[in-house]
Amino acid sequence: MTTHTDLADQERILERTASLRDRYARVRAVSETIAAPLAPEDMVIQSMTDASPTRWHLAHTTWFFETFVLKEADPKHEPYHPMYEMLFNSYYNAVGPQFPRPRRGLLSRPTVEEVMAYRHWVDERMDALLACDVPCSESRLDTVELGLNHEQQHQELMLTDLKHVFLQNPLHPVYREIHAPPSVSAPKLRWISYEGGMVEIGHRPEEGFAFDNEGPRHRLFLPSFELASRLVTNAEYLAFMKDGGYEDPALWLSDAWGEMKLSPRRAPDAWIEQDGRWCEFTLRGLQPLDPNAPVCHVSYYEADAYSRWADARLPTEAEWEVAARGVPVEGNFLDDDLLHPRPLVRAHPDQPSQMFGDVWEWTQSPYGAYPGFEAAAGAIGEYNGKFMCSQIVLRGGSCVTSRDHIRATYRNFFFPTARWQFTGIRLAR
Amino acid sequence: MTTHTDLADQERILERTASLRDRYARVRAVSETIAAPLAPEDMVIQSMTDASPTRWHLAHTTWFFETFVLKEADPKHEPYHPMYEMLFNSYYNAVGPQFPRPRRGLLSRPTVEEVMAYRHWVDERMDALLACDVPCSESRLDTVELGLNHEQQHQELMLTDLKHVFLQNPLHPVYREIHAPPSVSAPKLRWISYEGGMVEIGHRPEEGFAFDNEGPRHRLFLPSFELASRLVTNAEYLAFMKDGGYEDPALWLSDAWGEMKLSPRRAPDAWIEQDGRWCEFTLRGLQPLDPNAPVCHVSYYEADAYSRWADARLPTEAEWEVAARGVPVEGNFLDDDLLHPRPLVRAHPDQPSQMFGDVWEWTQSPYGAYPGFEAAAGAIGEYNGKFMCSQIVLRGGSCVTSRDHIRATYRNFFFPTARWQFTGIRLAR
Amino acid sequence: MTTHTDLADQERILERTASLRDRYARVRAVSETIAAPLAPEDMVIQSMTDASPTRWHLAHTTWFFETFVLKEADPKHEPYHPMYEMLFNSYYNAVGPQFPRPRRGLLSRPTVEEVMAYRHWVDERMDALLACDVPCSESRLDTVELGLNHEQQHQELMLTDLKHVFLQNPLHPVYREIHAPPSVSAPKLRWISYEGGMVEIGHRPEEGFAFDNEGPRHRLFLPSFELASRLVTNAEYLAFMKDGGYEDPALWLSDAWGEMKLSPRRAPDAWIEQDGRWCEFTLRGLQPLDPNAPVCHVSYYEADAYSRWADARLPTEAEWEVAARGVPVEGNFLDDDLLHPRPLVRAHPDQPSQMFGDVWEWTQSPYGAYPGFEAAAGAIGEYNGKFMCSQIVLRGGSCVTSRDHIRATYRNFFFPTARWQFTGIRLAR
Amino acid sequence: MTTHTDLADQERILERTASLRDRYARVRAVSETIAAPLAPEDMVIQSMTDASPTRWHLAHTTWFFETFVLKEADPKHEPYHPMYEMLFNSYYNAVGPQFPRPRRGLLSRPTVEEVMAYRHWVDERMDALLACDVPCSESRLDTVELGLNHEQQHQELMLTDLKHVFLQNPLHPVYREIHAPPSVSAPKLRWISYEGGMVEIGHRPEEGFAFDNEGPRHRLFLPSFELASRLVTNAEYLAFMKDGGYEDPALWLSDAWGEMKLSPRRAPDAWIEQDGRWCEFTLRGLQPLDPNAPVCHVSYYEADAYSRWADARLPTEAEWEVAARGVPVEGNFLDDDLLHPRPLVRAHPDQPSQMFGDVWEWTQSPYGAYPGFEAAAGAIGEYNGKFMCSQIVLRGGSCVTSRDHIRATYRNFFFPTARWQFTGIRLAR
Repeated sequence: MTTHTDLADQERILERTASLRDRYARVRAVSETIAAPLAPEDMVIQSMTDASPTRWHLAHTTWFFETFVLKEADPKHEPYHPMYEMLFNSYYNAVGPQFPRPRRGLLSRPTVEEVMAYRHWVDERMDALLACDVPCSESRLDTVELGLNHEQQHQELMLTDLKHVFLQNPLHPVYREIHAPPSVSAPKLRWISYEGGMVEIGHRPEEGFAFDNEGPRHRLFLPSFELASRLVTNAEYLAFMKDGGYEDPALWLSDAWGEMKLSPRRAPDAWIEQDGRWCEFTLRGLQPLDPNAPVCHVSYYEADAYSRWADARLPTEAEWEVAARGVPVEGNFLDDDLLHPRPLVRAHPDQPSQMFGDVWEWTQSPYGAYPGFEAAAGAIGEYNGKFMCSQIVLRGGSCVTSRDHIRATYRNFFFPTARWQFTGIRLAR
Repeated sequence: MTTHTDLADQERILERTASLRDRYARVRAVSETIAAPLAPEDMVIQSMTDASPTRWHLAHTTWFFETFVLKEADPKHEPYHPMYEMLFNSYYNAVGPQFPRPRRGLLSRPTVEEVMAYRHWVDERMDALLACDVPCSESRLDTVELGLNHEQQHQELMLTDLKHVFLQNPLHPVYREIHAPPSVSAPKLRWISYEGGMVEIGHRPEEGFAFDNEGPRHRLFLPSFELASRLVTNAEYLAFMKDGGYEDPALWLSDAWGEMKLSPRRAPDAWIEQDGRWCEFTLRGLQPLDPNAPVCHVSYYEADAYSRWADARLPTEAEWEVAARGVPVEGNFLDDDLLHPRPLVRAHPDQPSQMFGDVWEWTQSPYGAYPGFEAAAGAIGEYNGKFMCSQIVLRGGSCVTSRDHIRATYRNFFFPTARWQFTGIRLAR
Repeated sequence: MTTHTDLADQERILERTASLRDRYARVRAVSETIAAPLAPEDMVIQSMTDASPTRWHLAHTTWFFETFVLKEADPKHEPYHPMYEMLFNSYYNAVGPQFPRPRRGLLSRPTVEEVMAYRHWVDERMDALLACDVPCSESRLDTVELGLNHEQQHQELMLTDLKHVFLQNPLHPVYREIHAPPSVSAPKLRWISYEGGMVEIGHRPEEGFAFDNEGPRHRLFLPSFELASRLVTNAEYLAFMKDGGYEDPALWLSDAWGEMKLSPRRAPDAWIEQDGRWCEFTLRGLQPLDPNAPVCHVSYYEADAYSRWADARLPTEAEWEVAARGVPVEGNFLDDDLLHPRPLVRAHPDQPSQMFGDVWEWTQSPYGAYPGFEAAAGAIGEYNGKFMCSQIVLRGGSCVTSRDHIRATYRNFFFPTARWQFTGIRLAR
Repeated sequence: MTTHTDLADQERILERTASLRDRYARVRAVSETIAAPLAPEDMVIQSMTDASPTRWHLAHTTWFFETFVLKEADPKHEPYHPMYEMLFNSYYNAVGPQFPRPRRGLLSRPTVEEVMAYRHWVDERMDALLACDVPCSESRLDTVELGLNHEQQHQELMLTDLKHVFLQNPLHPVYREIHAPPSVSAPKLRWISYEGGMVEIGHRPEEGFAFDNEGPRHRLFLPSFELASRLVTNAEYLAFMKDGGYEDPALWLSDAWGEMKLSPRRAPDAWIEQDGRWCEFTLRGLQPLDPNAPVCHVSYYEADAYSRWADARLPTEAEWEVAARGVPVEGNFLDDDLLHPRPLVRAHPDQPSQMFGDVWEWTQSPYGAYPGFEAAAGAIGEYNGKFMCSQIVLRGGSCVTSRDHIRATYRNFFFPTARWQFTGIRLAR
């Protein structure tokens, strides 16, 4: 806790506070924009254990600010509702018990309207806190910033979880009319070479916000490698399917083959065959498959099998980060409002294209701690470290990630079976 | 199909048509009244495979009239929606494929509003059909009458399924403010004797509508027996619990004991212990347990174990029907709007009390076909016969049954594990 | 306990004791004969929860005599092994805890040799007890008689459980070379009529040993009915299959259709298709299907569907018993050492044939208590009553039942899904 | 295929052939020695999906030589039994279909005796092949060497799978009387420092046999680290337990905590509490827990939680290999015939002790491919690569590993939940 700071510090803090106040309003509004086209009925359903109802996301992100900011800031804080702490705690054991995740879809109350009232109650108090003349402590501002990044993560999940709900429905509901860009032929895939040697990866503290799992920055030795100039397209993935890719055990990891016997797969998750032609379910409804768009909704198992079929492999996360480092953070993001990966229009002559946005790119790296990693103290320390087992790192953000949420050091992670995110494939060798 | 009928017949048919038209309006309105206090969020959730979302009940009962009446009546009938036939078919294989029952809670669309529009579309056409001067065939009127009884069954399920949804919610939502009658001491349980001999049970066709499984009426020999003068109360069930009833394997069927190891039980389904005292979750919220009210939400296993503990047994369905035969169909029904079993105020001097309404009474009879039973032809023949295995007969209706839906020959049936219905215990010996 | 008996009683008891001593030696020897052709490896395996390893059957039947006879007879009885009581208790909660049934196949010790030593230790003491001059109490002799009938039941299970083990093995092991009778054409199926009226069924105590569930003898009213003159043959069942019987939902109970989606069925349990022809796995190995032999290894669901397809139904247990009453207990039993149902050679002119032996005949009667049934006191009371839920009665014994174990009043019971017993079909209407 | 080799080569090959012939006899004999104390009953049981019956191990290792050596060497090879290829294929899709792994315990045939006959049949032919004057091809000898290493792996599994079978048995069977060394106080744990920098890890081809997953040798940058001088003892692990280690969610990975809710854990796998004191089930039966012995039968989750509690972490596999490099391959192995980890007698002054033998040491490294890894061609290429997902690397061998089977580069791997192997904990920081 900062007890004494000189004037320059104070000014910096006041400036940061004002900037966070603006950002708070902006980020929180995005969640409501995402929910706006939905019926209350859409916002209650949990289509599988991995996903949560929209209503829950809206409440949980609010709970984060109430629990970690308002309650911390005011020792006399009266909770908005005595049960919400338990109902909307996701997995923070240090905060207390949690309503079981697989049962989130059994709750109809609080209703969407009640959740919105809860949001606005918290928003008012957060705004007052950040509008206040008394400077906040740096650590409080850090928590606010973390809360906003946390909310952006849940905004992505709101859209992917909703898409999964709609995917279960034979009516193929349309989330919203969305403009779709024209399809253009994908440029030929090229290999971009990177010289091996000692490199540094991970987040530099002086470069602004990052999650704890992006650091510490550290050195490692990287052999030379080549990275594909663009993402794998639907047409290429279709060629793999037509070549019997899903039927050849030699292409698949043992776990993958075993799990295919349990839940047979023959195409990416949102592909639906109609009258012998492949369609793709999108947030603007069922669409004919665009051969030029990047393939998405593939699991790590599928990405790995495809890469073996293509005589290549998936990149390590260090390779990806080294390649991404010099590339501007541009691409197809939530801000672009397409809500689906789009075909590559023009390839960059000497940089890989589509590194950011469109689809999360499966790496071959299991998600683990960087050397020297230590989780933050207290409940917030449960943020990332406790998941460092059996998951795989993905990089680069997707078409439902906010542009100002992503960076080259960002480490997302999912189990190798996950397919409901916008996940795709970039090859390396 | 009636091709030639004389004038008297025609008149009778027109009269029956007019009466069914009225009844159609009345019964259909009850479903909307039941749904009225609910938020759309409440109407989407499926809390377990046995239960269905309110929205689904509202649509499925409508689908029944569209499929079996409108579509049959008009060869050029254009379905309201091409997918609804599959989405809202429950289990009629003869009609076509069904959206899987355990996945009914994964659908947010059609929304409640869209389902209501569907209801009204069908209601208009049904009203026009029944208002028409051209006499319907008898068999069409039979189907309408079946559809109304079918809807009444689903009205009961709407309330019990909803109660189960709310029971999952630690907020203990209140369905509606409901007046509760004052509690009064239960009169002492007496045994009423019935002389054995040849009896007839089952429905007489001339007595009006009944489901196919209530017939054919047939003779059987019944040994003498005694029936309890009233239902088992919460206080009596609590005594069984305090006496270690749930811990003594000698009281339980083998299947019951095995399933208790899997899902440990220690009280009826809606009982919740708070600060050492038992409460009961009801449609008007969590309430202190009323010792005088009939116990409800017990499974057959629990009813059977209780009866063994009480040195008695459950009645057979023939015993129950013989005893119920002379008793007027009076009691605590949906029409009384208490939505919970109520304490017995005054015992009848020489008849068993509480035979109708309050709670469905578990018999010891497995649900099967009466001698000579034959299922109706076609899809409607799937109504009752295909469930004649591993279920147990219950008799008498409950506090959420419509008064004009129940009769002494009515056979309800559930699996012996079911607890979410208003099910209770009457002893015999 | 007998405290005073006059001389005539004493003599009768000594005679009964001597006769039971002989029978003990005979029955116990049969178990060893059944085990003789097996390798120790065969005797350890549990192929599903419903079945038990041979080794377990050999020990459990011995445990019965140690626990209910030797231990009761001698207050200073030292158990053969302190753990055997728990390891070989099947489901007698009154005796104490049980090693969990589904884990019986995880135990390799005691070895078969050790179990045999346990048998012989108990056999010696049982023989001494029954050889003794001091008359036993009647109730002790009753328990010995129950134990021998209990062992005969397990002898049947030893063979069916073993057959199920071998059925899992692609090597199709041969239990033993067995002479097979020549196949002969099945006589035409006729319908035998029975006049309805008041009848009595159930065991008369004066007619010797019976299980508790066979009584009390009681009156009931039986409508007229017809019973098929013989069992359904493989050829007839094949006609049902070829007619699409397994694909037509209208023929199946709802539970049956649901469970067929989970475990697809297309033929009886031991039928194996090889090069387009049906074979049947038997205890003498894989054999071409004999069209004239009675169909076996069908579930209740299959028997019920077949009967619906054949425009008939299954008999009730009362119908079966009334028909069986005058028929001599003759047929193809364990004593005949064929270990498989055999074609009917010659039909009786005015009695149903094949009523005893060959296959257990599914009735349509759920297994329940006869009016006035009371379970015996103490642990032995757990014998039959606690299973009176969700099971179906079968009648008549099979090709692996001992001839002196079966009678017209005998009630066997299995869940409607069970197929590993020698179960077959007789029609009624 | 070698078609022409000069004389020196030929001589070397003949020498290698002779040496492998000797080794073949020696290694194959060890399997029979391991099986010798067992009853046939012990050798059939599969106590869980991860484990296999002894009988299966004995046959599968033999199948390896028949399939990959004899069948390859002789185009006219007649298989010993037409079904064995399918029955004893573990997971080699390229060879053909496999009998499902979870059903290995359902087979009683071939009997142990028949499997032994199969072993001897193959042994004779293998001996003849290796005794032959005509030089084998190098690749054939490579396959023989792989087969022997493969058999040594299965020898370890025979003992751990058997121990797991016996652990299920409340009789606590004794595999064999085994001499146990006296317990001595564990020396104080010290931290040994290693300077960071560029290192090379992985197997050098010129150093003899290794599995494909141990290469290619490659460079990496390793930060400085410290390694514990010895393994964690039972006494230390007990302190963690007494400190509430199993109850504190902050110590556990999210997956670990979730799985503890499903299968509650409170101690290592073979620990059994008796009268308030901890015992440990060993291959010489149930023994009082030796506080000085290394803890074993802990999962990765437990090892990880313990290390967090101890303010340390698990080593990476690169750290372990760098530390192990200079340490002689000495320790407590299968050859020492203790079949249980033993207390450390004397710590080495400046090297870590207990690096080899006693227990497999969990690293924190997910099992994956080294840079440049390529699986061998054909069926043998399925050996290691297809498991490179969701498993964790363990190093150093155990008390049931053969001394000549282990080396510093050896990479074992198991799922993080596995506890039935001899797995233990060494700390790093």
